[in-house]
Amino acid sequence: MKLLLEEIRRNPLLWLLAFVPVVFAVAQLKPEAHTLLFVLSALAIVPLTVLMNVATESVAAKTGDAVGGLLNATLGNLAELIIALAALRAGQYVLVKASVAGAIVTNSLFVLGMSFLLGGVKYHTQEYNRVSGRLQAGLLFLATVALLIPSAIARADPAAGAAISPKLSVGLAVLLIVAYSLGILFSLKTHRESFASVPHSGAGEAPWPVSLGLGTLAGVTVLVALVSEVFVESVQKAAETFGMTPAFVGFIIVALVGGMSAMPTAFSGARKDRLDLSVGIALGSASQIALFVAPVLVLLSYFVGPTPMDLQFWPGAVVMIFLATLTTALVTNSGRSTWFGGVLVLMVYLIFAMTLYLLPPRAQ
Amino acid sequence: MKLLLEEIRRNPLLWLLAFVPVVFAVAQLKPEAHTLLFVLSALAIVPLTVLMNVATESVAAKTGDAVGGLLNATLGNLAELIIALAALRAGQYVLVKASVAGAIVTNSLFVLGMSFLLGGVKYHTQEYNRVSGRLQAGLLFLATVALLIPSAIARADPAAGAAISPKLSVGLAVLLIVAYSLGILFSLKTHRESFASVPHSGAGEAPWPVSLGLGTLAGVTVLVALVSEVFVESVQKAAETFGMTPAFVGFIIVALVGGMSAMPTAFSGARKDRLDLSVGIALGSASQIALFVAPVLVLLSYFVGPTPMDLQFWPGAVVMIFLATLTTALVTNSGRSTWFGGVLVLMVYLIFAMTLYLLPPRAQ
Amino acid sequence: MKLLLEEIRRNPLLWLLAFVPVVFAVAQLKPEAHTLLFVLSALAIVPLTVLMNVATESVAAKTGDAVGGLLNATLGNLAELIIALAALRAGQYVLVKASVAGAIVTNSLFVLGMSFLLGGVKYHTQEYNRVSGRLQAGLLFLATVALLIPSAIARADPAAGAAISPKLSVGLAVLLIVAYSLGILFSLKTHRESFASVPHSGAGEAPWPVSLGLGTLAGVTVLVALVSEVFVESVQKAAETFGMTPAFVGFIIVALVGGMSAMPTAFSGARKDRLDLSVGIALGSASQIALFVAPVLVLLSYFVGPTPMDLQFWPGAVVMIFLATLTTALVTNSGRSTWFGGVLVLMVYLIFAMTLYLLPPRAQ
Repeated sequence: MKLLLEEIRRNPLLWLLAFVPVVFAVAQLKPEAHTLLFVLSALAIVPLTVLMNVATESVAAKTGDAVGGLLNATLGNLAELIIALAALRAGQYVLVKASVAGAIVTNSLFVLGMSFLLGGVKYHTQEYNRVSGRLQAGLLFLATVALLIPSAIARADPAAGAAISPKLSVGLAVLLIVAYSLGILFSLKTHRESFASVPHSGAGEAPWPVSLGLGTLAGVTVLVALVSEVFVESVQKAAETFGMTPAFVGFIIVALVGGMSAMPTAFSGARKDRLDLSVGIALGSASQIALFVAPVLVLLSYFVGPTPMDLQFWPGAVVMIFLATLTTALVTNSGRSTWFGGVLVLMVYLIFAMTLYLLPPRAQ
Repeated sequence: MKLLLEEIRRNPLLWLLAFVPVVFAVAQLKPEAHTLLFVLSALAIVPLTVLMNVATESVAAKTGDAVGGLLNATLGNLAELIIALAALRAGQYVLVKASVAGAIVTNSLFVLGMSFLLGGVKYHTQEYNRVSGRLQAGLLFLATVALLIPSAIARADPAAGAAISPKLSVGLAVLLIVAYSLGILFSLKTHRESFASVPHSGAGEAPWPVSLGLGTLAGVTVLVALVSEVFVESVQKAAETFGMTPAFVGFIIVALVGGMSAMPTAFSGARKDRLDLSVGIALGSASQIALFVAPVLVLLSYFVGPTPMDLQFWPGAVVMIFLATLTTALVTNSGRSTWFGGVLVLMVYLIFAMTLYLLPPRAQ
Repeated sequence: MKLLLEEIRRNPLLWLLAFVPVVFAVAQLKPEAHTLLFVLSALAIVPLTVLMNVATESVAAKTGDAVGGLLNATLGNLAELIIALAALRAGQYVLVKASVAGAIVTNSLFVLGMSFLLGGVKYHTQEYNRVSGRLQAGLLFLATVALLIPSAIARADPAAGAAISPKLSVGLAVLLIVAYSLGILFSLKTHRESFASVPHSGAGEAPWPVSLGLGTLAGVTVLVALVSEVFVESVQKAAETFGMTPAFVGFIIVALVGGMSAMPTAFSGARKDRLDLSVGIALGSASQIALFVAPVLVLLSYFVGPTPMDLQFWPGAVVMIFLATLTTALVTNSGRSTWFGGVLVLMVYLIFAMTLYLLPPRAQ
């Protein structure tokens, strides 16, 4: 407990934990105050995901490198998964898909581009591990193919697309999870030496004991689940108040809130010329969401949601994911970055964000 | 003749030659046994294509490197060409196009991915000739552009697409054959030293005399043509019996049968750490089919088929060829391979195969 | 003035200046002779753009490297801008967009491919600055994303596409101009040493005094504007006479006329093994038109044209720009070129040109 308090004192983002009880109080007293609830729950989710990451890493650090790496790789985006599950249970499939697509795009463009820019402003040219960057870009490309195919079939022949969509989605989900598992085997076991060790928090920290880690993880997971429910309920109505489209909310707002916790590490890594760390977080998160979170949601939708969810995304989202994947493939190919590389990647993100912001509400 | 028998004794695939007379017997006695005829003719085509390759290489080996390379490059996919011609004569243009698209995808994804996987399981990292890989990837990309354009025009304006399709297809066919010929000039003549010599069969074999080679080539070509006719007639009906869609049959089954002969060499090359050989076969076959077999079929359709055939493919096939080309371009860029690179490429192939398997019969 | 005459004596292309007064005379006496006016005005534009380039460089050479580079980068495609402005004022938005798309494709495929081919015929393998090639390819990719998105939205939901098109186009135009400006900052200021200095005319020339440069620039700009008006008026009707489609005229003819002036420098650079120069002109012009000329035209259309122009291009043009960008990204990745690389790039261009030539008149 003392360690937990110490961590809180050290990390200003964790001070936002104060908003967690406030969310529950307001949700009870003023359930119709959607805008307020949206802002409060977004503010409460951020420190919870930070705590989740710290706890995951503490457990990971104690269980040896291989198991630890596995834990990090599977629990790294637990917050995104829980938020999406809350939306899944509410049957808000449009929001689920938008937030999945948005998380892929946000990580592979915004986090990557921002890291390149922040690092490039300080250092003239930065180098990073090409092998690792290429693996992640390859995994992302595979996921993009899996998302493109149902859309392409549905466009070429809408009837056929609708007929095969449920079976195809389950099949694709299984293939993606297999590919993801083999990718972990590859990077943690058979070709481990090719991958720079990418610790998700700053090095040199004294890790927590396993019991504290596990306890925190369990407690925080419950809290994130509860806050997410408030968040999902309020986000759409709050968006209308702010004049935002549902597409923009799912793609940009939910994705930024869900991924906020990893950003400080990615950005400070870039400022310390440890770009491997930043690229690993950015592309690792993106491929994890595409190859693990999204398929798991499809499979869970058979148990959790009102009806099964498929992998058929809004065509505009598919185009954006495809372009984001091409961007990362082109950019990570050289293994070097400059501030202008960051600008290019961020500009692609800005084009997407602007388009989604301008879209009329019914278009998604 | 002794040499021919020796070759047969040494290569177990050639034992399947026993099925050749069986096919003709059954075709005479039980012409309505489609499923049986399909299985038998598929089994008979495989050893014939193997024999065809051995004969081509024997002739090639005797005629000097430049002419030999040319022979290999033009006759290497003779079997695919003959099978497609049989389908062309029967007016089965959907099957022709599906098998052409399938052969491109099968070679560039299945053969390449399997070679990477089989080699990568044995060797930690394998290197191969980047220059050669890039040339083939470049040729494939050009062919993809040629296949994409008529589709894109037809989608943007169906009337215009239909109006220009015949002329455009002939023009594209001529351009592709010119590009293919210049590619041979480049790799066999002006920039020969940049290309690893890629012998299609194992090195160290005593080649046949030219007369035996030419005789075998002539005889086998006739046999393949005859068996192909049985195969093409039976494949669609057999597929219905097995519950397969026409798209799946053309893309996967016909392409696998037609390309089977080159696979053992490609795979054993990978196991012997001679990945240049494997990549050469995989991408060489794919680009040969795209830039030589497909255009030749378009031009021959003016003389052989009931009506001219165009280059306008099913949109789903175009998307798959485009994604396969992007995959090879991304993968061959580094000139190195690991088992996981193979998994990624195979996964793309599996996604395509699964989608085609699930497609309702009328969708293609 | 003596210097101006000397320049004219030395450069045979400038002899075509004799056509400038002829154009004005014919336009007065025989305003209905569209075919003659088209040929004459095309012949008159070429030497004027050459003169424009010489004048720009003279001013640039005198104003120091940074300002000079900036001048070159912004005035380099002044002729294309003026021709497009003439079409914009005439409300010919289809022609404006076709010529913008055509100029991107012509520079990134025709000029690049021709340079590779001409250089590769003389030299076995040529190397050029990868960093610079990648920057230009990256800028082109960004512009392609900006052009793809409005098209993709419009296809997924035509009503939504139409609703957001004007605002989105202005937003994208601003983003592209910002990206272009930052790219200049990057290549001329912060990472200057990574870029080979790319003088647009032959080295060793004695530059003109600033006053002559500025005077020529002013005078020629007026002349180009006047001749462009004749050109834009006559080109469509002349095209009908020649049996060309409007798409072909805009994409191929106007783009070739507008870009003619830079081609001799690019091609002779390749023949002198100074491929950096050729690649710089080809990709630099393409990205300049995509990121500067096109957005400026969108913004100016609010003041000059009868109605605002958006960035929503004909889907076929978007596909061509996308494929051209992919081609340059794949080709420039290695930093080396051979004659066959040039053939591949030119073949892509020929495929586009042939398709446009065959398109029925109403398809664009």
